[in-house]
Amino acid sequence: MKALQYRTVGAAPEVVTVPDPEPGPGQVLLKVTAAGVCHSDIAVMSWPAEQLPFPLPLTLGHEGAGTVAALGDGVTGFAEGDAVAVYGPWGCGSCWMCAQGKENYCLRAAELGIHPPGLGAPGAIAEYMIVDSPRHLVPLGALDPVKTVPLTDAGLTPYHALKRSLPKLVPGSTAVVIGTGGLGHVAVQLLRAMTAARVVALDVTEEKLALARAVGAHEALLSDASAAASVRELTGGRGAEVVLDFVGAPPTTAAAGAMAAVEGDVTIVGLGGGTLPVGFGALPYEVSVTSPYWGTRAELVEVLDLARAGAVDVHVETYGLDEAPEAYERLHAGRIEGRAVILPHG
Amino acid sequence: MKALQYRTVGAAPEVVTVPDPEPGPGQVLLKVTAAGVCHSDIAVMSWPAEQLPFPLPLTLGHEGAGTVAALGDGVTGFAEGDAVAVYGPWGCGSCWMCAQGKENYCLRAAELGIHPPGLGAPGAIAEYMIVDSPRHLVPLGALDPVKTVPLTDAGLTPYHALKRSLPKLVPGSTAVVIGTGGLGHVAVQLLRAMTAARVVALDVTEEKLALARAVGAHEALLSDASAAASVRELTGGRGAEVVLDFVGAPPTTAAAGAMAAVEGDVTIVGLGGGTLPVGFGALPYEVSVTSPYWGTRAELVEVLDLARAGAVDVHVETYGLDEAPEAYERLHAGRIEGRAVILPHG
Amino acid sequence: MKALQYRTVGAAPEVVTVPDPEPGPGQVLLKVTAAGVCHSDIAVMSWPAEQLPFPLPLTLGHEGAGTVAALGDGVTGFAEGDAVAVYGPWGCGSCWMCAQGKENYCLRAAELGIHPPGLGAPGAIAEYMIVDSPRHLVPLGALDPVKTVPLTDAGLTPYHALKRSLPKLVPGSTAVVIGTGGLGHVAVQLLRAMTAARVVALDVTEEKLALARAVGAHEALLSDASAAASVRELTGGRGAEVVLDFVGAPPTTAAAGAMAAVEGDVTIVGLGGGTLPVGFGALPYEVSVTSPYWGTRAELVEVLDLARAGAVDVHVETYGLDEAPEAYERLHAGRIEGRAVILPHG
Amino acid sequence: MKALQYRTVGAAPEVVTVPDPEPGPGQVLLKVTAAGVCHSDIAVMSWPAEQLPFPLPLTLGHEGAGTVAALGDGVTGFAEGDAVAVYGPWGCGSCWMCAQGKENYCLRAAELGIHPPGLGAPGAIAEYMIVDSPRHLVPLGALDPVKTVPLTDAGLTPYHALKRSLPKLVPGSTAVVIGTGGLGHVAVQLLRAMTAARVVALDVTEEKLALARAVGAHEALLSDASAAASVRELTGGRGAEVVLDFVGAPPTTAAAGAMAAVEGDVTIVGLGGGTLPVGFGALPYEVSVTSPYWGTRAELVEVLDLARAGAVDVHVETYGLDEAPEAYERLHAGRIEGRAVILPHG
Repeated sequence: MKALQYRTVGAAPEVVTVPDPEPGPGQVLLKVTAAGVCHSDIAVMSWPAEQLPFPLPLTLGHEGAGTVAALGDGVTGFAEGDAVAVYGPWGCGSCWMCAQGKENYCLRAAELGIHPPGLGAPGAIAEYMIVDSPRHLVPLGALDPVKTVPLTDAGLTPYHALKRSLPKLVPGSTAVVIGTGGLGHVAVQLLRAMTAARVVALDVTEEKLALARAVGAHEALLSDASAAASVRELTGGRGAEVVLDFVGAPPTTAAAGAMAAVEGDVTIVGLGGGTLPVGFGALPYEVSVTSPYWGTRAELVEVLDLARAGAVDVHVETYGLDEAPEAYERLHAGRIEGRAVILPHG
Repeated sequence: MKALQYRTVGAAPEVVTVPDPEPGPGQVLLKVTAAGVCHSDIAVMSWPAEQLPFPLPLTLGHEGAGTVAALGDGVTGFAEGDAVAVYGPWGCGSCWMCAQGKENYCLRAAELGIHPPGLGAPGAIAEYMIVDSPRHLVPLGALDPVKTVPLTDAGLTPYHALKRSLPKLVPGSTAVVIGTGGLGHVAVQLLRAMTAARVVALDVTEEKLALARAVGAHEALLSDASAAASVRELTGGRGAEVVLDFVGAPPTTAAAGAMAAVEGDVTIVGLGGGTLPVGFGALPYEVSVTSPYWGTRAELVEVLDLARAGAVDVHVETYGLDEAPEAYERLHAGRIEGRAVILPHG
Repeated sequence: MKALQYRTVGAAPEVVTVPDPEPGPGQVLLKVTAAGVCHSDIAVMSWPAEQLPFPLPLTLGHEGAGTVAALGDGVTGFAEGDAVAVYGPWGCGSCWMCAQGKENYCLRAAELGIHPPGLGAPGAIAEYMIVDSPRHLVPLGALDPVKTVPLTDAGLTPYHALKRSLPKLVPGSTAVVIGTGGLGHVAVQLLRAMTAARVVALDVTEEKLALARAVGAHEALLSDASAAASVRELTGGRGAEVVLDFVGAPPTTAAAGAMAAVEGDVTIVGLGGGTLPVGFGALPYEVSVTSPYWGTRAELVEVLDLARAGAVDVHVETYGLDEAPEAYERLHAGRIEGRAVILPHG
Repeated sequence: MKALQYRTVGAAPEVVTVPDPEPGPGQVLLKVTAAGVCHSDIAVMSWPAEQLPFPLPLTLGHEGAGTVAALGDGVTGFAEGDAVAVYGPWGCGSCWMCAQGKENYCLRAAELGIHPPGLGAPGAIAEYMIVDSPRHLVPLGALDPVKTVPLTDAGLTPYHALKRSLPKLVPGSTAVVIGTGGLGHVAVQLLRAMTAARVVALDVTEEKLALARAVGAHEALLSDASAAASVRELTGGRGAEVVLDFVGAPPTTAAAGAMAAVEGDVTIVGLGGGTLPVGFGALPYEVSVTSPYWGTRAELVEVLDLARAGAVDVHVETYGLDEAPEAYERLHAGRIEGRAVILPHG
């Protein structure tokens, strides 16, 4: 079959022919219907060899959807032809974290050499993929796999990021979304669907602010040096109860801290290399700052239910498998609007 | 001044002239702008003398809004002319419950003889009223007192009832509202504004179901013997994660239990005399059943913020103070659409 | 191998020889080191044929511990010889509930015909047993399997029952344990280890009250008609914030309601056929009543960690496999002190 | 009466005679039985004039206990002679935060010029003090005011700090207390009384580690460069689910981050000027870092209930009012063991 592989450190990914995979006991073979292209792959491909936590070649794609093509020995609960999405942050399935469905925080993944598909295990940008266990499948039902596949990361990650803050998002509260790209523009929709909070979006171009307003932001402001002051003014001096930073660069993490309310949450999702220092007097009282990773199995079920209810809509551009390298190039160049999705079977 | 008083057990309330009240130390005098008429007053007026927990005559009205007319000695934080709503379930202010703002569950109210206005203390259906402490005032700002005053009970009670269930109202979940009258039609709006749950309304007439749909219910069904089966069918057999019963009569409490999902919440708000028996095997596993009362101080602030955001709208009919007895008659006869509000100063 | 089977409706269980089991793909074969004998088996064996949810013969035992004897194809994360306890309430592993580790509330178990070992699937009172997935194993490490095996049900069930109530068990609160037998005397220990609440135990004999005091109850009272009044007196009139009823018979559920505090939790665990009716005015405000079943995967990990810390101690009597029928007889006759444990290999 | 006042910026506090205070409407006059001496007063007295948020002279003492000497007009719920402790972080009593009893985070305190006693308002180190509202009093009952008064800050602050983390302190978890002085040695006791977590104490002298073990720490380690590695080793590599840093200096905040587990909480209470930077990759996934201030009204009730149960014991040294300046000198010199308490009436 054909697959998109990252084969040489520093080189562009290429479409190659690899042996057709076969599901071992307990595994599931998917015919891939759609696979998402993500910024974090570009980050990984920029790392030097000694930093790569897995060997090459690697089939890319950590956002996957498909139909069940074959069940390995002992697999129950699914049937051939079932349409499914893949939960990506695989863990051991047995430890205390995995027992809660928090496989993104598996206590034994490193020790056991377990990696997500596309980030160590063979990924979804291929005609077929192996999923290591049926517990990593979520039924799609009638959901469109092309529009839905980005939700397995670009939906699940903001969903998890804001879920810890729901008790603070009471009526009268304010949530700020910094960076309204792939994840951020989903975050705005999640906040509107799940809370009565006022949603303020920050980004650096008027075009992006227009998108933020279109998907539901009550306010959209330029993310500049005065943004924190503007948020404080909008909130009568109180600040924002929740700030979700999908950029995570030094100016945005600093602004996030400066606009937070007493007892607020600042959640840094973006990989932009910024940090926010916490200590007595450094921020308003009891602002809680954290940086999470991906999401849990149950949360993915919930995100897909939200899509089923029509409450989230991801803008996608589609590409064939042979065009996948071009999709990565365009993403790298900042020329993808929303999310690029590969359709391996056309 | 003029006030509406319940003076004789079993008799209708009447408009009388009483001495103008003066605020003592720590108290606040309000010029009443609007006061709500509530079904529970009718229940109280049906009790025999030996069951009444307070002496007569009693000025009615436990939903009140007004402007600050005078501050008693030692009162700070408010000024004459401030527009405010009154938090009704007064407590001692000092015990462990009151320290959390749960004055509705004050541990010392009975011992200290503290009663809510209109339910023991002189109420809001009068030209002026005394509020015992500024902590029982919530600023209205630009909110219309007439549309807002019913929220102090008909908004706060459903808000409190559903707040405990918010963690269960994840995307993909279902909330059922039984009885879409005064409190229930607010509950539908709260659920839509604050959660991504599917909202199913049950009531006994097509007219009320039409209202439920108009205020946002995804589904509206007749509340009959097949309602539980219908809810189970709508949810693929799973049942409703949350059932709020604003009727509380034997048929509705039974239906509430029959339509609840495993780990679901059933909350009985209505005073209809029904109960739901809980024990191993009596309901799906870990269904939690409770019956709360009114709400907390912070919750009233949040409800008013929700109104400020335009997310709740109560249908009101207005009456002058002299027409207040007629408003009670009409309410008793089931002829009030939404909520009756008295305007003591015209 | 030898196994204890329930073979004929209404008859006593008997030790028989059955084929040695072999692990299929994804399964694990355990050499059983210890298996618990539980009251609920006696309940099941009292049911008429038409009520039994599974066919006979059935190998009994839903509390199991053993060492890994063989791994089915595709099983990773465990090795032969590992000492483990078995998580009993098996589910599908994939649905929304199972994704949170709440396999006790699996949404698909009935549809897929999944049963716990000893309650439909072949159980632990045998020389060997099959565990359907490694996710149902919790490592024992240095824990004594004989003292630990009862914790898989008699520890996990009270642990789950009280976990929902931990936020209410603040300093100054009171927890009542009704019935201090197998589960109840563990509950007393869990409450002492995990909270600062005052623990009051209720039972019907002075002997059982002495045991309750020995394992840490601050107060131990006879469970009679005056128990509710006594609890209210002990708490200055406030009542108990949490009542755990391990009897669940009509007198105890009624007492549980009568002794609960405003906003308290009543949790009915016992199968004694009692129910507690909930509705406005039926109980103190916002008492929440529920009846849960067993516990989650993560909770079993936590219970074993508690044992590892020395915080729970179960009194056990041991029997060989050939003596297992006698253990059931003695349990039925109320002659087991604590918990009976079968040692299939002596 | 006599009072200890801070009168001149940079000078030592002195005992002076001031007019006897009289309670205004809504206020309460206390005859002070005990007042605590706290490190934060020394910090305040080191600030330059332009940084002081209140005018001098200032009567010191933000930890106070006394008996009710007189009630201002309109005060109910307390009687002369009642023994009480004072809740110190006064707020407006009406805003959304105060409505939850979180007066430590009052939204209007700055605007309205409200300060805690001893930190702007006249404090407790005097023969008498004015408490602005009865809601700031907690009944002592039979509790010894001398042993109890430090709990109003040195107990309430660690209690509040750890309360947010209770859901993470399940059996099998680890809590680290850095700095086992006034607040830290109370924190160790709170953790032991309220959770089943393993408690690890860190400090810089063997003497302090001995105290930590005496009050219940399971492990006590030197707080040096290898402390984080030691904690990780003690926890099988997992790290601590909760780290409470009562020093807050650069080396301890860095160590706190280095020893935290995935999804752990780091709470910085100490004023040592250190900060911990949070961002993607800077700490284990989803470590949540915050720095709270004092505690809520209900929490003080709970702390006193814990003292009533005998679960916390503060070591105190007592001084007369005339010796108060000496107590501050000794505290400054690090020569107080535990907590210094002033007894204004001998």
